[in-house]
Amino acid sequence: MDSVANPAELTSVDDTDAAMTISERLASFTTGFAYQDVPEEVLERAKLHILDCLGIGLASATYRFGHIMANAMQGLGGDGPYPVIGLPMRLPLRDAIHVNGTLVHGLDFDDTHGGGVIHASASAVPTVLGMAQAHGATGKGALAAYLIAVETASRIGMAVNGNFHRAGHHPTGLVGAFGCTLAAGRLADLSAPQLALAQGITLSMASGSLEFLSDGAWTKRQHPGWAGVCGVTAAAMAMQGFEGPMQAYEGRYGLFNLHLGQHIGATADYDADIVTAGLGETWELKNVAFKPYPACHFNHAFADAALTLQKEHSLWPGEIASIVARIGEGQVQVVCEPEADKRRPRNEYEAQFSVHYIIAAALSRGRFTLDELDPSAFNDPAILELCDRVTYEVDEQSNYPRYYSGEVTVRTKDGREFTHREDHNRGSDANPLSTLDLEEKFFANATRCVSRDRAQQVLDLVMKLDRAQDLSELGDALTAG
Amino acid sequence: MDSVANPAELTSVDDTDAAMTISERLASFTTGFAYQDVPEEVLERAKLHILDCLGIGLASATYRFGHIMANAMQGLGGDGPYPVIGLPMRLPLRDAIHVNGTLVHGLDFDDTHGGGVIHASASAVPTVLGMAQAHGATGKGALAAYLIAVETASRIGMAVNGNFHRAGHHPTGLVGAFGCTLAAGRLADLSAPQLALAQGITLSMASGSLEFLSDGAWTKRQHPGWAGVCGVTAAAMAMQGFEGPMQAYEGRYGLFNLHLGQHIGATADYDADIVTAGLGETWELKNVAFKPYPACHFNHAFADAALTLQKEHSLWPGEIASIVARIGEGQVQVVCEPEADKRRPRNEYEAQFSVHYIIAAALSRGRFTLDELDPSAFNDPAILELCDRVTYEVDEQSNYPRYYSGEVTVRTKDGREFTHREDHNRGSDANPLSTLDLEEKFFANATRCVSRDRAQQVLDLVMKLDRAQDLSELGDALTAG
Repeated sequence: MDSVANPAELTSVDDTDAAMTISERLASFTTGFAYQDVPEEVLERAKLHILDCLGIGLASATYRFGHIMANAMQGLGGDGPYPVIGLPMRLPLRDAIHVNGTLVHGLDFDDTHGGGVIHASASAVPTVLGMAQAHGATGKGALAAYLIAVETASRIGMAVNGNFHRAGHHPTGLVGAFGCTLAAGRLADLSAPQLALAQGITLSMASGSLEFLSDGAWTKRQHPGWAGVCGVTAAAMAMQGFEGPMQAYEGRYGLFNLHLGQHIGATADYDADIVTAGLGETWELKNVAFKPYPACHFNHAFADAALTLQKEHSLWPGEIASIVARIGEGQVQVVCEPEADKRRPRNEYEAQFSVHYIIAAALSRGRFTLDELDPSAFNDPAILELCDRVTYEVDEQSNYPRYYSGEVTVRTKDGREFTHREDHNRGSDANPLSTLDLEEKFFANATRCVSRDRAQQVLDLVMKLDRAQDLSELGDALTAG
Repeated sequence: MDSVANPAELTSVDDTDAAMTISERLASFTTGFAYQDVPEEVLERAKLHILDCLGIGLASATYRFGHIMANAMQGLGGDGPYPVIGLPMRLPLRDAIHVNGTLVHGLDFDDTHGGGVIHASASAVPTVLGMAQAHGATGKGALAAYLIAVETASRIGMAVNGNFHRAGHHPTGLVGAFGCTLAAGRLADLSAPQLALAQGITLSMASGSLEFLSDGAWTKRQHPGWAGVCGVTAAAMAMQGFEGPMQAYEGRYGLFNLHLGQHIGATADYDADIVTAGLGETWELKNVAFKPYPACHFNHAFADAALTLQKEHSLWPGEIASIVARIGEGQVQVVCEPEADKRRPRNEYEAQFSVHYIIAAALSRGRFTLDELDPSAFNDPAILELCDRVTYEVDEQSNYPRYYSGEVTVRTKDGREFTHREDHNRGSDANPLSTLDLEEKFFANATRCVSRDRAQQVLDLVMKLDRAQDLSELGDALTAG
């Protein structure tokens, strides 16, 4: 190269960067985020993710847990101006976000960022929907805030390489809160210093336990909504000058050291540099996988593998002697153990988090849909008999956490053996769903709650979100209130 | 004894108890709590703790952080019917609790449960104040709910024997949320099964990082208010039937295993049996110590030791060569390290959390009051010079965490050496403050904000709280709005 750089200046720039905390870097990314610089394909994909979330939210509004959550928040905080997806009510800002987040994530059908092991859209979409309306943002403003939330939260999750799960935390809640803080702060027009403080405040609010795995409790469902509540609250406090600590992530008791037990001899580790690597240059949204099945993303490759084997070899349940699932070690605690429980799910949540069940249901019924999460399904003797034939092995070649790979081997009673492997879960960038697939999924979900025409209206509004002056029309189309 | 018990029946009772989760036991304690069975001295003491909290809240309302917090919540959620202590505004329920919790804890002048290392009143009082008004509870109902919060949260903290602090968590936020859940649930008249679910929901909300220690951020201040928000929200969800996990404490990813890093090789431990031991029979409220000084409770014995030495030996700063503080090992990370920072507090928070500073200020000025937390004090060269002469040693005979003992040795330039030890921090049961001391403290705090008459009115209302039909008069007396 011919250009002569001034070494002192270069050093100075590097020093400045190095001296910035992670919070400051994410704040700077947020205030500097330029919509016009986002590649068109990323924007189009963002709209599909938002659409996917809203479709699931509409479906959830027909479920009991959705009504219970909405009634609880209405009873506590009364009515307000913000739409609740698919329900005849409007609530105060934070309550609407809390309920909508619960609806979007409530069926475990929403998207997942692979490496971050986080459902980033489930907290981002409700937070952006509420805050964009609160601050009169345009559709472009909303899309920018959504991307800020996803790009930051995914990377924070990636930095721990699955270790939050190992520790027992649900990053969708714990980490999602930070993405929501930045999205909320962007929409409230916080300065970079205010955004930095806000993340420190969020550190004292964010939470999310995996204890729901023990008995299929509903708490997982509300993690993204609560993450949004934390983010919006922290942003509002920082806007007034409430002081949060500066090192929300890398600090002595920051997100990583605190929740990975660094002070009490824990072995789990992290790489903080990943949080800010490639921000605004590479797009983690591309690594957010859509879900073809309403179940824990870890199980999807197993559903596809089982369905492929069933179809290719015309298997029928009665001829199957045994089934082996090969799975990444870091996933075992979530979907394989304790094995006796995984073979007898007592509710839809336990069914969604059982490799044994998803393989058995897929082989028994030739599909895995919301219908396979009905009590009639997880009490179906034909499925349960197959559950007993499933065992698992740790797969040393697993792509986890980057992709949720899976391999299934079926042995028949007459001695045949068939194996199918999915290296990349379908719906991920390496094995994508088409726009048509996603529109079909949206209509199937949305029309559980609203008419086809209303669903079409929501789809149209989302697909032209970049041209919307504000989000009021979309909000009106989403709520029955 | 002559009575013949039926062994089968006895076994059966034990089995039932053993089969109950901790959440179920705490729920049962909460629904079965009988005001009339509480010893009179416990009730009297409860009123003094409530009074102490309200006095500090009034003082805090004159501070910038209090205004910022109140403005932030008012800006976010608008006005509502619930009083904010000392400020001309009323807010929606959860926002009033969040602000009031921040005011009560904001000066680090509120009480502390020794073994639990938790400021239980700071979250309990605002939660009870708000929820009692929301549900029209009597003064007796409010006192019962306050005691439920303190008795449960203290024991949960005791179960980890200081290990939440070691891990980097602030039990006042993390643990306080569970006490608030039970108090809120009691006032909302939740059933025992609902209360059990509520605690599981709280597990997915509770939070609190010690990162404020790194730079004196304000997040610690809002931990008890946020704990109250978590508790009230979780109780409202459980009341409608939202399902939380049943083993909120002892579960695989319950409070203890999750936040003490049990799945990632951490060494910190806990004894879950302590959570329910002696509930309703022994009163942990008696082990909640009042604060004579506005500083971290760990520092109080050092202030008293320094002041005693100064008085007994008529020490003047210029003759002091060196000072050694002897402190419990588990307290070092909070108030002694990093030592260079502890010798140069940059703000009132860092001053409150420095053994070096409190000893230096006490020796230099002969007192430690809110005035010693002014920038004029922590920039005072006379104090800073003494800070440089302080070192610390680990005290193997420390009573921490049960009591926050402390020993100070002063060596003079002419070779004399004086030592004073406080085995029990003043304000604890072993070294109590008198009712008169506490009333003086209340008036000193309250009259920073309101007239002596208004302060007297608040005192009178609190001291006859057991005879109040509701809390509206107290609420009116507390707020300027």
